[in-house]
Amino acid sequence: MKVSVVQSEPKLLDKQHNLQLHSDLINSLETDLLVLPELCTSGYVFESETQLLSIAEEAGTGESFAFFTALAERKNCSIVFGFPELESTSNARPRIFNSSALINPDGSWKVYRKTHLFNREKLFFSPGDTGFFVCEAKNKVKIGMMVCFDWQFPESARSLALQGAQLICHPSNLVLPWCQQAMKTRSLENRVFSITANRTGTEGEDQNRLTFTGASQILGTRGELLASLSITEPGVATVEINPELAENKEVTPLNNAFADRRPELYVL
Amino acid sequence: MKVSVVQSEPKLLDKQHNLQLHSDLINSLETDLLVLPELCTSGYVFESETQLLSIAEEAGTGESFAFFTALAERKNCSIVFGFPELESTSNARPRIFNSSALINPDGSWKVYRKTHLFNREKLFFSPGDTGFFVCEAKNKVKIGMMVCFDWQFPESARSLALQGAQLICHPSNLVLPWCQQAMKTRSLENRVFSITANRTGTEGEDQNRLTFTGASQILGTRGELLASLSITEPGVATVEINPELAENKEVTPLNNAFADRRPELYVL
Repeated sequence: MKVSVVQSEPKLLDKQHNLQLHSDLINSLETDLLVLPELCTSGYVFESETQLLSIAEEAGTGESFAFFTALAERKNCSIVFGFPELESTSNARPRIFNSSALINPDGSWKVYRKTHLFNREKLFFSPGDTGFFVCEAKNKVKIGMMVCFDWQFPESARSLALQGAQLICHPSNLVLPWCQQAMKTRSLENRVFSITANRTGTEGEDQNRLTFTGASQILGTRGELLASLSITEPGVATVEINPELAENKEVTPLNNAFADRRPELYVL
Repeated sequence: MKVSVVQSEPKLLDKQHNLQLHSDLINSLETDLLVLPELCTSGYVFESETQLLSIAEEAGTGESFAFFTALAERKNCSIVFGFPELESTSNARPRIFNSSALINPDGSWKVYRKTHLFNREKLFFSPGDTGFFVCEAKNKVKIGMMVCFDWQFPESARSLALQGAQLICHPSNLVLPWCQQAMKTRSLENRVFSITANRTGTEGEDQNRLTFTGASQILGTRGELLASLSITEPGVATVEINPELAENKEVTPLNNAFADRRPELYVL
């Protein structure tokens, strides 16, 4: 199957622009699954909860969901994208999560809420409560979602892989220099494919100014680089993968990356 | 404090040669702690359990222990080294472990038995039963030991770091191409120093012939390379480190690599 990583530069608080931007980027693409960056509908450097509330939306019913559901159907591909999720609740103060959605061509969808919030995200977002889970995308490929800073914690990718993920979809807005390399270890230690979709550009003012590091990548089950993008420019890369390869956890004729684990000796 | 990595090329089944070899390598060294490779007293590619039995020794009382205890006292440094450990037992069939010993200048010692055996090691060694633990070396630095293929499992270094290890001592006989890079992730995700002491050279015949990859390294708490050695030649490298840096798990002003963990959401 074909999988794609999409690297973009969203505009803060301009949802219409951002939806169109991603539609344009993938317009001529033929693929079975594509991953967009974290918070790709909204931008990243919010100054207040009010700002964030103005662009957050409920899973399943919001404008971005309608947009990407139509796109997934039209392109006949699964789409993973990051968005600020407004909790569906009758409470006076709904929570907002930094979420990643999978939308399939048949309209089915799942939402993962970011477990490990990064830095000032903690001021505006609630920590995710979905935990890590595996779900099916087009072609019945088993994917797991994690978002950006989840990479720092080996437990994130491990939890997904141990539950059977063949491919980790990893929408990101990276600003630290380490993730792209660390994800090679994540793919290798778990023998899974991974797609890290990062953004480019800068956002925010003064001490809150951030530069995003691009270099989005698709990795194979040995952590090998199958595709990577520029550190500064938006772009798209597509590769053909066989997700079944992720079922093979053999390291040597006598070693299996999963069967050789000894949880009774771990202190976690 | 000063810490050193020693890279060597032991000779199979020639303990006298190997002890002298390491003594020569560190003779002029001034350091507080040094790490030698896995199975550095015995060599690696055994052809039978009988061969292995002929060179294995009990912890605390064996010839290598006497040798390195004297050396640790004379050099006033802690020494970590790998050796084949004969179980101290009255059973007719004692087990043999692929072990790593810490010996301190005052003669105190600890032994870690390799948890994850690699490939044909499974034919001759018993899987370790000590688990991962932290102990004190010279200057009260808190070290944790893991051996070679333990690197493949993020749980190894994680278990050591969560128990308070400041420095991971990692005797190795590496033959796969991935460990040196993956250890950067291990140091980074756990914010600990690590010393991977690998060997060089080739051993074994025909399909059992192995080439060891050298490139021993000392890493800082962000996974940065503080020292590294040749891929083919024996050698020694020493760096000055402040183990207290490993107590600082801060990633950003609002993020802590340990406090931000959410074990209730992990599936491990």
